[in-house]
Amino acid sequence: MDDREPKHLARVVLGVDVGGTKITASAVDTHGNLTGRIQISTDISSPQATLKSIQNTVEQAISRSGLSRSDIQAVGLGIPGLIDPGSGIGIASVNLGWRDVPVKAWLEERLGLPCHIENDVRAAAFGEARYGTGRGLDNMIFLIIGTGIMAVVIQGSRIYRGSNGLAGEIGHAIIKRDSPQCKCGAHGCFEALATGPAIAARATQKVLEGRASQLASYSGKDVPSLTAEHVFEAAAQGDDVALETIHEVAEDVAYLIQFLALAYDPQVIVLGGGVTQAGVLFLHPVFRVLERMAEERWVFHRVYTSTLVQASRLGADIGVLGAAALAAQAV
Amino acid sequence: MDDREPKHLARVVLGVDVGGTKITASAVDTHGNLTGRIQISTDISSPQATLKSIQNTVEQAISRSGLSRSDIQAVGLGIPGLIDPGSGIGIASVNLGWRDVPVKAWLEERLGLPCHIENDVRAAAFGEARYGTGRGLDNMIFLIIGTGIMAVVIQGSRIYRGSNGLAGEIGHAIIKRDSPQCKCGAHGCFEALATGPAIAARATQKVLEGRASQLASYSGKDVPSLTAEHVFEAAAQGDDVALETIHEVAEDVAYLIQFLALAYDPQVIVLGGGVTQAGVLFLHPVFRVLERMAEERWVFHRVYTSTLVQASRLGADIGVLGAAALAAQAV
Repeated sequence: MDDREPKHLARVVLGVDVGGTKITASAVDTHGNLTGRIQISTDISSPQATLKSIQNTVEQAISRSGLSRSDIQAVGLGIPGLIDPGSGIGIASVNLGWRDVPVKAWLEERLGLPCHIENDVRAAAFGEARYGTGRGLDNMIFLIIGTGIMAVVIQGSRIYRGSNGLAGEIGHAIIKRDSPQCKCGAHGCFEALATGPAIAARATQKVLEGRASQLASYSGKDVPSLTAEHVFEAAAQGDDVALETIHEVAEDVAYLIQFLALAYDPQVIVLGGGVTQAGVLFLHPVFRVLERMAEERWVFHRVYTSTLVQASRLGADIGVLGAAALAAQAV
Repeated sequence: MDDREPKHLARVVLGVDVGGTKITASAVDTHGNLTGRIQISTDISSPQATLKSIQNTVEQAISRSGLSRSDIQAVGLGIPGLIDPGSGIGIASVNLGWRDVPVKAWLEERLGLPCHIENDVRAAAFGEARYGTGRGLDNMIFLIIGTGIMAVVIQGSRIYRGSNGLAGEIGHAIIKRDSPQCKCGAHGCFEALATGPAIAARATQKVLEGRASQLASYSGKDVPSLTAEHVFEAAAQGDDVALETIHEVAEDVAYLIQFLALAYDPQVIVLGGGVTQAGVLFLHPVFRVLERMAEERWVFHRVYTSTLVQASRLGADIGVLGAAALAAQAV
């Protein structure tokens, strides 16, 4: 062994967050520190072009990190869509325009490094379990609320997948029957109530009903173009309609959380995704509803503690860290 | 080895179903066949008296079975209430009037056989997994709907308990916020909507509102004394109010099932408990709602198959078989 090499370098992995617009890659050490982080635009003109983007990003990250290829133990990739970690195939990705792309085989041949792929949300959950709030716990739920809603269940250090790989797909569970139509076609899904687009739609509805709100100035009456960001922005300025919308959504999210808590009785439920990035403005009302529920019902009271529900602390690099955790786990 | 002894006898266990009114015990072979089954009344005058009832029942069952004590590998006991299988203590049982009763130690000393205790519903789930519908599957939910509602999750051949032992306590999860008050004090719990007492209460409410129904003849206007059995009886005779009640309850149960299916993605959800014993009258509307949901939403469609939800097939002896499965598992 070369004395000049710090010992921990022997356990460096490379995490790649593959998105529809950007690819981010970085070397990551055992403590979750990033070295050589780089972000480039995704070429989605063809699956081949996207794979080349990925290869290119990985090689630049290695070069930037100052490590040699032999220092990297493995590469982990978080990819949006339906991914088969076993075969290493990207089965379907709407964002990337993929159908049955042999990601693992293609990259391993060119990079000369073992590659591991996973759905990006599931990879993020691994990151949270290995480097974030779930560190050292063996029973965690990562609940992501962004453009979709999904619960990733981690038991031990493995994802609990269920018999069809669909465990945790609670975004399309029905919570309110007499509710807005979801893009899946049905009514009352969580996704129709509490995603970013759903928050925008709920606020838009109130504005269209003629409620006085500064949100009206963002939105044309015929083509509502409000986003969840607008709603959070207006709420931060004290707009009643925006605040009311957020409180309604927070209540729905709290109901989902209590259900997951009673179904799985986890040590922690980590909230991630765009909606939760709105911070205390959204999280405070969620916690308030959960506390009220815990006061009212003894069973939930036994499950609910002040540390049960926590926001993700990994920030913008959760994708890279998740992909790195995937690789580290496989090593 | 004695040639006259059939080989499988070496694996006989004894199952004991301890109820508030009756104790049932039987020797059970590896195939789930019962020998020496006996049922006696429970003496609940004191914990000591109840333990003596149990001891007595076990000894009579062994005697009836024609086996000698040395043929019995272990005794399993399903007990209502909060049970600690590890320490062998019955922590709290309302039905039996128990607080911290050292069941395992007491019985092992007197019976000279290893004893294993478990909550009766969880034991029943073991029975379903070992001798019933879950046989050979490694991912099952046993959903019991009786005087309470609980989901027991079996992964591999173990109960998934969660971090506080409360995984599956979905009876007190909230499904409808503007709903009847539950005995836990809160509103909208599943238990306030779909247990036996809840079915009776929902039908009673309709009768008190003046709806024409044969149920009115069972019930005084001041002291409603309808039971779920009355409702099922009237429904079987075509009574509109009874049928409507059952359909409403079936819809709520279907919503619970879809949630559990999406959360856990199990191979099978086995329905047990008093309410499901009403048979097709109750199960048919549940299946109809589930099928409609599967048609409407593609995610649930991928989870739902015609064999996903099945009624328990173990019948009245599920308690004994569950307790036996517990013992067989421990051996």
